[in-house]
Amino acid sequence: MDMQSISYIIDTLYAIFAMTLIIFMVPGFAMLEAGIVRTKNVTSVLTINTLIYAIASLAFLLFGYSLAFGELGNDSMSKYAAFLFQMAFVGKVINIMSGGVSERAKIIPLAIFTVIMGSVLYPLVVNITWGANFLEGTILELSMYDLAGSTVIHSTGGWALLAAILIIGARKGRYTKEGGIRVIPASNIPLVTLGAFLLWIGWFGFNGGSVGSIASKENADLVALTILNTNTAGLSGAIMVAIIMHLMYKKLDLTMILNGALGGLVSITAGPDLYDIYTPILVGAIGGGLVVLGVSLFDKLRIDDPVGALSVHLLNGIWGTLAVGIFASNGNDITLIGQLKGILVIAVFTFISSYIILYIINKIVPLRAGNDEEMQGLDVQECGLEAYPEFKRAF
Amino acid sequence: MDMQSISYIIDTLYAIFAMTLIIFMVPGFAMLEAGIVRTKNVTSVLTINTLIYAIASLAFLLFGYSLAFGELGNDSMSKYAAFLFQMAFVGKVINIMSGGVSERAKIIPLAIFTVIMGSVLYPLVVNITWGANFLEGTILELSMYDLAGSTVIHSTGGWALLAAILIIGARKGRYTKEGGIRVIPASNIPLVTLGAFLLWIGWFGFNGGSVGSIASKENADLVALTILNTNTAGLSGAIMVAIIMHLMYKKLDLTMILNGALGGLVSITAGPDLYDIYTPILVGAIGGGLVVLGVSLFDKLRIDDPVGALSVHLLNGIWGTLAVGIFASNGNDITLIGQLKGILVIAVFTFISSYIILYIINKIVPLRAGNDEEMQGLDVQECGLEAYPEFKRAF
Amino acid sequence: MDMQSISYIIDTLYAIFAMTLIIFMVPGFAMLEAGIVRTKNVTSVLTINTLIYAIASLAFLLFGYSLAFGELGNDSMSKYAAFLFQMAFVGKVINIMSGGVSERAKIIPLAIFTVIMGSVLYPLVVNITWGANFLEGTILELSMYDLAGSTVIHSTGGWALLAAILIIGARKGRYTKEGGIRVIPASNIPLVTLGAFLLWIGWFGFNGGSVGSIASKENADLVALTILNTNTAGLSGAIMVAIIMHLMYKKLDLTMILNGALGGLVSITAGPDLYDIYTPILVGAIGGGLVVLGVSLFDKLRIDDPVGALSVHLLNGIWGTLAVGIFASNGNDITLIGQLKGILVIAVFTFISSYIILYIINKIVPLRAGNDEEMQGLDVQECGLEAYPEFKRAF
Repeated sequence: MDMQSISYIIDTLYAIFAMTLIIFMVPGFAMLEAGIVRTKNVTSVLTINTLIYAIASLAFLLFGYSLAFGELGNDSMSKYAAFLFQMAFVGKVINIMSGGVSERAKIIPLAIFTVIMGSVLYPLVVNITWGANFLEGTILELSMYDLAGSTVIHSTGGWALLAAILIIGARKGRYTKEGGIRVIPASNIPLVTLGAFLLWIGWFGFNGGSVGSIASKENADLVALTILNTNTAGLSGAIMVAIIMHLMYKKLDLTMILNGALGGLVSITAGPDLYDIYTPILVGAIGGGLVVLGVSLFDKLRIDDPVGALSVHLLNGIWGTLAVGIFASNGNDITLIGQLKGILVIAVFTFISSYIILYIINKIVPLRAGNDEEMQGLDVQECGLEAYPEFKRAF
Repeated sequence: MDMQSISYIIDTLYAIFAMTLIIFMVPGFAMLEAGIVRTKNVTSVLTINTLIYAIASLAFLLFGYSLAFGELGNDSMSKYAAFLFQMAFVGKVINIMSGGVSERAKIIPLAIFTVIMGSVLYPLVVNITWGANFLEGTILELSMYDLAGSTVIHSTGGWALLAAILIIGARKGRYTKEGGIRVIPASNIPLVTLGAFLLWIGWFGFNGGSVGSIASKENADLVALTILNTNTAGLSGAIMVAIIMHLMYKKLDLTMILNGALGGLVSITAGPDLYDIYTPILVGAIGGGLVVLGVSLFDKLRIDDPVGALSVHLLNGIWGTLAVGIFASNGNDITLIGQLKGILVIAVFTFISSYIILYIINKIVPLRAGNDEEMQGLDVQECGLEAYPEFKRAF
Repeated sequence: MDMQSISYIIDTLYAIFAMTLIIFMVPGFAMLEAGIVRTKNVTSVLTINTLIYAIASLAFLLFGYSLAFGELGNDSMSKYAAFLFQMAFVGKVINIMSGGVSERAKIIPLAIFTVIMGSVLYPLVVNITWGANFLEGTILELSMYDLAGSTVIHSTGGWALLAAILIIGARKGRYTKEGGIRVIPASNIPLVTLGAFLLWIGWFGFNGGSVGSIASKENADLVALTILNTNTAGLSGAIMVAIIMHLMYKKLDLTMILNGALGGLVSITAGPDLYDIYTPILVGAIGGGLVVLGVSLFDKLRIDDPVGALSVHLLNGIWGTLAVGIFASNGNDITLIGQLKGILVIAVFTFISSYIILYIINKIVPLRAGNDEEMQGLDVQECGLEAYPEFKRAF
């Protein structure tokens, strides 16, 4: 066994470890969203999350991976491990999007969108950022630094979500004609908490694995620094929101605090390997602050996003990508302008293509549940299963 | 540190990693089953799952391992890691069995059966397949290929379950005299979903770890291929069931979809290392289809299996073992006949021995709860604890 | 890549793996406690758990680590990985403490205590045991063997909890004037079970990672033995309590059985690397027995600990540390006297310093919720969120 083999083995094991952590994000998203929506829509949300993982991953195996990276191949680790790691990302983009349209979007059209997102849209975004790069040498060639996807994953999911919300509209009764906003409380806080921590742990694999190799002293340091900084931004986002909540309302709203942690995690994702160990405190705190601002901003704009995905993923995806340009710019490869260009190109591409595809899908298979179905909850019609049939409802 | 030591260290670490993933299947089975049964039997089901892990693992430490493998020893990795990996399997066989008799089987007789299964029955099955092989050289010597236990784990658990159901009978009111079948809905769908995904993730360790070593380039590839193919069969099983559900009922029954995923995972378990990356799509899809067929078949036969374990584990255990003979037969070591022989020998041994042992236990400590206890739910009598005492029941 | 680099890489990967398992204990504690307390206090308990992780970890990054270990540095693995592993421990100490005062302690004073515990108190305990050791050469220098913290983590948390309970008192209505004890049943048994198993799995990282290195054949064996023995003590604790429950009450109280497992795990934590593979059965069984004894003892003393943390962590932390002196004393470095001295020094330091600090905090920001708030449940006042708003309460 030579040294190159040892490196190959260790990096294969490391990629499998990282991939496994990311797969914990599948129940992570599922529990988070199932805890936030009303009990009458819980089964439907869980079904969407399950199908997204199944469909997006299979689409990526059959079509997406080769579109993103060219042929299945990798010399530094098993090509199957490299594939698995990339495959673990795909569903996340669509989870971000599906969460924000929950309680009124139907499963079948979302499943169709998942096929297209997993086969074509997301792979194209990867192609021009982490992949084969068909834009190379053209004026559109990107120089954005985005280690684990503040833009590639989180903003991409966020733009697709914004397109979907503009087409599908708000939940019935969410915004009154008089301009009021009806608060719809989360139905199961332990599930929200469990989901958030499964996501948090998954992030260690997401960001840590994105370093690509642990098989040298330098890379081992870089991997550990990446995971440390990732975690720190999550801590800081949570604390920032807790402080804001305490000062503003004297109530520690846990769903906001957890979203603050997730916002911090999104914001660090573009460059956890580039910062010293203190900068993530600032990056994550701003990320947490953006969640609080965003949630109230989108409500003012009457953009109804039950899980706060636009604030967590879109705003912080943008912020995180910019933060690399601000705090880790080396004036050469990484510039604020380069980061901005990346954000914009992907925003324009993802938003427009998602909008068009969702618009077409919506004409053929309506995205939105009927009024009666929405009032009754989607679970009965869509799945034939109530989430908690034996529990008496309080209202 | 020489090369042999490096291999030893890496394989020890890898076995510990795989074992840890498998232990996530303990809460995985517990949550899945707790979500499927009625609220009045939830604590009882959770208690059984907890005790199975505790008792089966300790029985395997004290008696089972040496019966299966001879002395605790292994040159290629730490013998303690090798033991831990094998120990993680034992409880699963009994989890499969206990799930299918839930809502009417009492804890103490199941605990007694667990002692015997963990000390003797399962170790004997392992002995003649993966272990010391006391049948070697006899006419009964098996040549079945079963990497991670489509037969050794899943069918074994399934045959024990079938024996148990034949002895214990159906839940009261499940089948009417007029031939009707009363649908008993799952009480907590988020728990079912969480449990299924914990099982799914555990499967990466189950199958990936069964390759036995990651410490060469060839083995690293084999491990990664194994995990990739394992996952693919799960995806494909889920999608297949979703398609069937949509076409047949226009309802996406999530419990069936998740069982479809698990069926796909069982079906790939005999040979995930033998297939190319596309064959698992077919193997898993058939696995998903078998779950749908099986659930309705066993109901027609009035074999009452609340969690669908016979369809998921027994039918797909058989199918997965045959699939290796069909798609990965090399005409030499692996043959369809050899696979069939393995299935049959283990079926006959497990079913008969389980039946006899359960029959005797049942004479001494009745397996089945009394009628009143079953109506009231097993939790109060068996555990003295309701699962959700503060929640008002809808019925 | 030389041999030293390979060792560095493997130990960095191993520390990250172990750390990740420990982080699963964050949702582990959160789910366990959320399942045990009444539904009206669930959000509050989850919020405390979330903030403890965030605040304690950040405090340890900013102040605690350097107080415990001196400068951030380590030659045998990435210093960031070494930090992450140690950081993962901190919150646990406070989780132990917060669980035992739940249902009446307010979040803000606990958050303030967390800052001090994470910055100063816990780091000082680590300093004199695993760290820089400012007591070296003095009469107080400790020679206690405590691999993963039976005393350093579990008793420390337990003493802080005892101090807190003495200050804050019992929940209203828990003990009647006539000397009766009101049983308050756990509100959600699946959450308790899930939490306990997440803790159990986290323990593999806690104890296994505390060996410090896996990168030699000897260490690989030691790591695997440590994890095996850790698990065995958990199995044995659970079985012991199940037997006691069955003999005494004919009811298998699952919350007690799970606490028995946790008690077994705490009791093995001081020396899982020192025992043969059978001794942990005895150590863990006694640990389980101590949980049963402890729960009734503390109730007799009217020390109200809703989650049984004093029995699980304090009693078993002491027992586990003594057990090393009894079963693994080598008459030289490890002696029963040395173990006792360690237990006492840390008991005196932790209890007194925690008491003083909590006393002062209590004068400034009262620890205890008002009577009305306690009756109504802390969730509404503290968090503005009910845990299960759509579920009708049975009482």
